[in-house]
Amino acid sequence: MNVEIITIGDELLIGQVVDTNSAWMGGQLEKEGFRVIRKTAVGDVEADILEAVGTAMERAQIVLLTGGIGPTRDDITRNTLCRYFDSGLHFSEEVYQNILYLFEHSGRTMNPLTRDQAMVPDKCTIVCNRAGTAPCLWFERGGKALIAMPGVPHEMKWLMTNEVVPRLKQAYRSHVFIRHQTIWVSGYGESALAMQLESFENELPSFMKLAYLPQPGLVRLRLSAYAGSEEEASQSVARQKEKLHGLLAGHILSAGEDKAPEELIGDALLARGLTMGTAESCTGGRIASMITSVAGSSRYFTGSVVAYGNQVKSRVLGVPERDLQAYGAVSRIVVEHMALGALRALHCDCALATSGLAGPGGGTPGKPVGTVWIAACVNDRIVSECYRFGTIREMNISRTANTALLMLLGLLNEQ
Amino acid sequence: MNVEIITIGDELLIGQVVDTNSAWMGGQLEKEGFRVIRKTAVGDVEADILEAVGTAMERAQIVLLTGGIGPTRDDITRNTLCRYFDSGLHFSEEVYQNILYLFEHSGRTMNPLTRDQAMVPDKCTIVCNRAGTAPCLWFERGGKALIAMPGVPHEMKWLMTNEVVPRLKQAYRSHVFIRHQTIWVSGYGESALAMQLESFENELPSFMKLAYLPQPGLVRLRLSAYAGSEEEASQSVARQKEKLHGLLAGHILSAGEDKAPEELIGDALLARGLTMGTAESCTGGRIASMITSVAGSSRYFTGSVVAYGNQVKSRVLGVPERDLQAYGAVSRIVVEHMALGALRALHCDCALATSGLAGPGGGTPGKPVGTVWIAACVNDRIVSECYRFGTIREMNISRTANTALLMLLGLLNEQ
Repeated sequence: MNVEIITIGDELLIGQVVDTNSAWMGGQLEKEGFRVIRKTAVGDVEADILEAVGTAMERAQIVLLTGGIGPTRDDITRNTLCRYFDSGLHFSEEVYQNILYLFEHSGRTMNPLTRDQAMVPDKCTIVCNRAGTAPCLWFERGGKALIAMPGVPHEMKWLMTNEVVPRLKQAYRSHVFIRHQTIWVSGYGESALAMQLESFENELPSFMKLAYLPQPGLVRLRLSAYAGSEEEASQSVARQKEKLHGLLAGHILSAGEDKAPEELIGDALLARGLTMGTAESCTGGRIASMITSVAGSSRYFTGSVVAYGNQVKSRVLGVPERDLQAYGAVSRIVVEHMALGALRALHCDCALATSGLAGPGGGTPGKPVGTVWIAACVNDRIVSECYRFGTIREMNISRTANTALLMLLGLLNEQ
Repeated sequence: MNVEIITIGDELLIGQVVDTNSAWMGGQLEKEGFRVIRKTAVGDVEADILEAVGTAMERAQIVLLTGGIGPTRDDITRNTLCRYFDSGLHFSEEVYQNILYLFEHSGRTMNPLTRDQAMVPDKCTIVCNRAGTAPCLWFERGGKALIAMPGVPHEMKWLMTNEVVPRLKQAYRSHVFIRHQTIWVSGYGESALAMQLESFENELPSFMKLAYLPQPGLVRLRLSAYAGSEEEASQSVARQKEKLHGLLAGHILSAGEDKAPEELIGDALLARGLTMGTAESCTGGRIASMITSVAGSSRYFTGSVVAYGNQVKSRVLGVPERDLQAYGAVSRIVVEHMALGALRALHCDCALATSGLAGPGGGTPGKPVGTVWIAACVNDRIVSECYRFGTIREMNISRTANTALLMLLGLLNEQ
């Protein structure tokens, strides 16, 4: 089942916004056996939208479209789709009630522009958007579907997860059964891992696929089977997973549900009845922010000390000033003191500490930008490690955060 | 001068890679007066590449293409372009010497796959790529250009900056001058702002455009002029910006460079010689993480206490336990104590504190999910405010973080 994605908005063309929506959508669709064959971005220009929609509807069975359906004047998608499908507009009481509900809940007052969002095309099915005021418009013609959603990422994601993908699966039921398995691998770069798995990949049955999803500091492998029966799909995945365990012994962090490291840590802490905290210098709160992005994290996360300045390291975390002076903030002894200080200050059982040079400035010949110390401790067991990452600040921060989470996960799995 | 961008690679379609290249390219082109009208992503499939190239060459004067020109077998762009332009291949000594140089420099050894990259199409100009082994291929036909580059971001950026943009400027001198202005607005929802600016938009000259780019808690406006001379473009933007200042007095956070709130705060602190820290409960380190994402933030950011548990609020930040019990953690008195505690614990001049219910659980009838208290202080001046956001955890965290940054920015601007 072929899918095309069209994204609409001048901001996508002139580089003000990086389109992360369509990659996310592609990943979700691929998991369910839909195949994205093309993505097109056009500006808020009627003729361009009409041409993109027309050619996409010729090539694909399903066209997903995001953007340009907000309340402002530069949002012309709804009216353009009315023109394409030769449709009028009518007032939808259901959409209006949803808008009223959202506005009342957030204490805002209605205005005519918002009310206008309850005007919907006659020739489509309205899928209510509980995450925002603009509804999802589901058009069908000649056995094909065009589904328009707002471009606001959390609204699009809410709609895709709760409405669009489930409905697509039902409407375009495929006779292929799909099973995926996600395997987190640490300690390999992407190409080194690909070389290690070369013969594994060559021997994979033709109905199976292995995808590499590299993240800073780790690689997520996705093993997929597209088989004629549920049993065949499940068994094939299980068999190949066993092979991978043999090939990558010691490098597999987890294999199972598609969970991020911060979720896996939450599960591991809850299972062991432990709490954690962080003491962060170069990551600047990124690790705490990742862990607290998980709902329910207050059950195991007590807090964090972001110790950017050395005064905070010594006064709040108790790092001895003589160690800061003798070894510098980016050193094994300081990062271990930070981790132990976090245990005390934050009253937790486990801690992660980071200290490094995120860059771009501040490097020296002995400690170039990208040098990072990470310490992890669980109760009275502490490990620390020095890494040399790259020169790009954002990459150094995210690699450090991911690597730290993996270190703690490894320690927890030993308990 | 109209430009289209084509990106090639299966990884872009199935969500393995977020395409950041085309946004960067769009920004560079737009600055120089080239107008990107469409972006297309296709997989490593010959028919799809041929179709995308063919239609783009019809619509645009310039087509920039990235991806699929590496050494591995799924990279088919070069041969596909040879087919499109009806061209053979020949060995290029110059490209080969560049490959040799790069390999010697990095201590790698040549292999047949890499040597093959010195085979280049007859019917194009070769632009040498000093940042990598695959050259840039510059085809021309009927006064139009198709320029193919590698998709590796730093190679593409090197080529764009040093070769492609300078050559395009020379070959296709544009007669349209473009100026943009970014204006951050707080205190308005997107639709309320659009209503406020309705007559402003109606009166805008036809060669100007206003775009709304909403973010949680604030709206970024982009004012653009496409004029016949540089002077006219600059003056038009300046004139309309003045009008906006009149219409939105007190709500404009900044107008000028396209900077995020965390960068504006950094500028404001540096200009005043002040330092800051944060005490975060519901934002869980997000604010600290945003502030420290800015290079050089260690000059004004001392640290943060992420006080997720009440013990951390009382012991590290000195929030009186009786206040936590009497008023609850989500209260004015607690969030103000947190801000003052941050000043003491983190030895800084300014502080932000947050305490709220990010959800999805934990709400009560009196304090539903989405209730958030924020306090900001600059020296001995403190302000605090209660907000009712929504029910989605991620949105509550990012709206709280953005709103907090804006509160501090407002206070700093009063100094």
